[in-house]
Amino acid sequence: MIKIAVDAMGGDSAPRAEVSGAIQAVQEYPVGVILVGAEDRIREELRKYKTDNLPIDIAHASEIITMGEPISSAVRKKKDSSIRVAAKLVREGRAMGVVSAGNTGACMALTKLVVGTLSTVDRPALAAVLPTAKGRPTLLLDVGANVDCKPNHLVQFAIMGEIFHRLILGTSRPKVGLLSIGEEETKGNELTRETFPLLKSAPLNFVGNVEGRDVFRGEVDVIVCDGFIGNVALKLSEGLTEMVTVLLKKDLSTYLTSQIGALLSRKAFRSFKARVDYSEIGGAPLLGIKGVAIICHGRSTGKAVKNAIRVARELCVNRVNEKIEEEIKALNGMHQNATESMMIN
Amino acid sequence: MIKIAVDAMGGDSAPRAEVSGAIQAVQEYPVGVILVGAEDRIREELRKYKTDNLPIDIAHASEIITMGEPISSAVRKKKDSSIRVAAKLVREGRAMGVVSAGNTGACMALTKLVVGTLSTVDRPALAAVLPTAKGRPTLLLDVGANVDCKPNHLVQFAIMGEIFHRLILGTSRPKVGLLSIGEEETKGNELTRETFPLLKSAPLNFVGNVEGRDVFRGEVDVIVCDGFIGNVALKLSEGLTEMVTVLLKKDLSTYLTSQIGALLSRKAFRSFKARVDYSEIGGAPLLGIKGVAIICHGRSTGKAVKNAIRVARELCVNRVNEKIEEEIKALNGMHQNATESMMIN
Repeated sequence: MIKIAVDAMGGDSAPRAEVSGAIQAVQEYPVGVILVGAEDRIREELRKYKTDNLPIDIAHASEIITMGEPISSAVRKKKDSSIRVAAKLVREGRAMGVVSAGNTGACMALTKLVVGTLSTVDRPALAAVLPTAKGRPTLLLDVGANVDCKPNHLVQFAIMGEIFHRLILGTSRPKVGLLSIGEEETKGNELTRETFPLLKSAPLNFVGNVEGRDVFRGEVDVIVCDGFIGNVALKLSEGLTEMVTVLLKKDLSTYLTSQIGALLSRKAFRSFKARVDYSEIGGAPLLGIKGVAIICHGRSTGKAVKNAIRVARELCVNRVNEKIEEEIKALNGMHQNATESMMIN
Repeated sequence: MIKIAVDAMGGDSAPRAEVSGAIQAVQEYPVGVILVGAEDRIREELRKYKTDNLPIDIAHASEIITMGEPISSAVRKKKDSSIRVAAKLVREGRAMGVVSAGNTGACMALTKLVVGTLSTVDRPALAAVLPTAKGRPTLLLDVGANVDCKPNHLVQFAIMGEIFHRLILGTSRPKVGLLSIGEEETKGNELTRETFPLLKSAPLNFVGNVEGRDVFRGEVDVIVCDGFIGNVALKLSEGLTEMVTVLLKKDLSTYLTSQIGALLSRKAFRSFKARVDYSEIGGAPLLGIKGVAIICHGRSTGKAVKNAIRVARELCVNRVNEKIEEEIKALNGMHQNATESMMIN
């Protein structure tokens, strides 16, 4: 049975959401979970449930990396942090993937460091699964702060994102776009102008440049960008959604003064929130590492953690990493052939 | 009296919104307007109003640059476009500023080309005036596609934005932030890391790096970034706000089925829209050119055009360009002194 290591100490309500999510996951899917963190606190939380015969283990870790903590020192100094111990379980083959709702930067750094990067991949990328007006999510990558990317990094992001959309989200021929500031090939900055022809010649359903307004439209399945822009875009989206809902709630409460109206509009907001929140996918996959990692929002619920475990399992079952290795190798071969034939001519 | 040239053919409902805005402006403020475009169509629109003795003139222009039109050919070929003729009026000293709701790229290119850039400014910047949760708007610049900026460009953007916030929006000591992906000085990409110390040593109320989620919070008054990122951020914000309101409306109509509830929620949405729309400022100032230019949204109403004319006038009255020249000159002098003293030591 596939086992997933869950960092039980990561999220804002850890280990509650993590334990609840783990129990839901092992009950619903053929998957085992290793909860990683302070053993006594995890046991205390587990005692609230009937866990007899459930495939849940505990791996003790004595340290926690907190949300605001500077990543470099946390990675260097906390040798027994829950996220590092979880990553070690993957390196040692005792688990196939990691799920964490902890410090995103530390999760990325530690999984890359401890588990390692796929041999064909230059930079692993964090992919945000965004809700869209059409319902089908758009994958935006990299959002994980791979700054100052080179064109071939973006091409690799496109290949990894396309495979994820196809194998995990079940899209038959995902459309791939390049985030830029105009539709024409010549629009954009140095990076996008150099990346465009590479994406065009890659074996992808490349639809060209897309603009900021296309990100939430749902017309394009995979959108690639430099990690600085992706990170700014993701956080801006969170902040703006928050502002819009706060202002709208205020305006609605001015007009809908009756108890019943207020109650109904609260219900509508809850339904809206369920639609746009990330808990259906559970988190952002870090693509391009050996093994599997899903990084969840700090505010993740048990349901989000459950879904992250499900997606981690599906990444394993569908051999996503093998596909990534194969396709990037094929692309590199294609480029090599092209270069050789150019040299012959 | 200060005169502003208004491109009457630019917006989606031109010349209706432009003529209406011009009339409102000259009635409310001590300003004159020159409406630029197809004379017969402008006259036809003006006939709907009582315009006797109003300081409104017409300057004929036989061509229109449409929204989707490729900018480079429109700029090269359409020698008699309304926006070019409006810019010429500024160059010839017959108007002090331009307001246009037309093709943003063409407006920027033509005002830069025809009116020219201030002698101390390397790159004019388009500044978006964004609504925030706090009510006080945040100025984000550049959003006008100054791609691959250098650190000193961002410093100039900061100085220009700070002057605008201070003199036009009346903020006594505007807080200036650098858009990045983490608060610490060392976080970000090559551009932000090199820009940070320059902003720190500039005579600004520099508060350090800000993240995407801070853009709509209203804690920081002026946020500077490369024009690629600013443009992506602006368009993403438009698309996301649209998606959020569409989805919320749908959810509300599910719950608020009564006629009265639906009516009230429509009112709330209108009130929300008024709060977040740009029509209070009217448009985005293009800072750093000789003369003044305000570029409005294509969907601008008469009210937005009126406010853009008001802001254009205020930019003239408050001698914003002189302040920009002075402060950038002073900064350059500071740097020169620093370099000289380094060479002496």
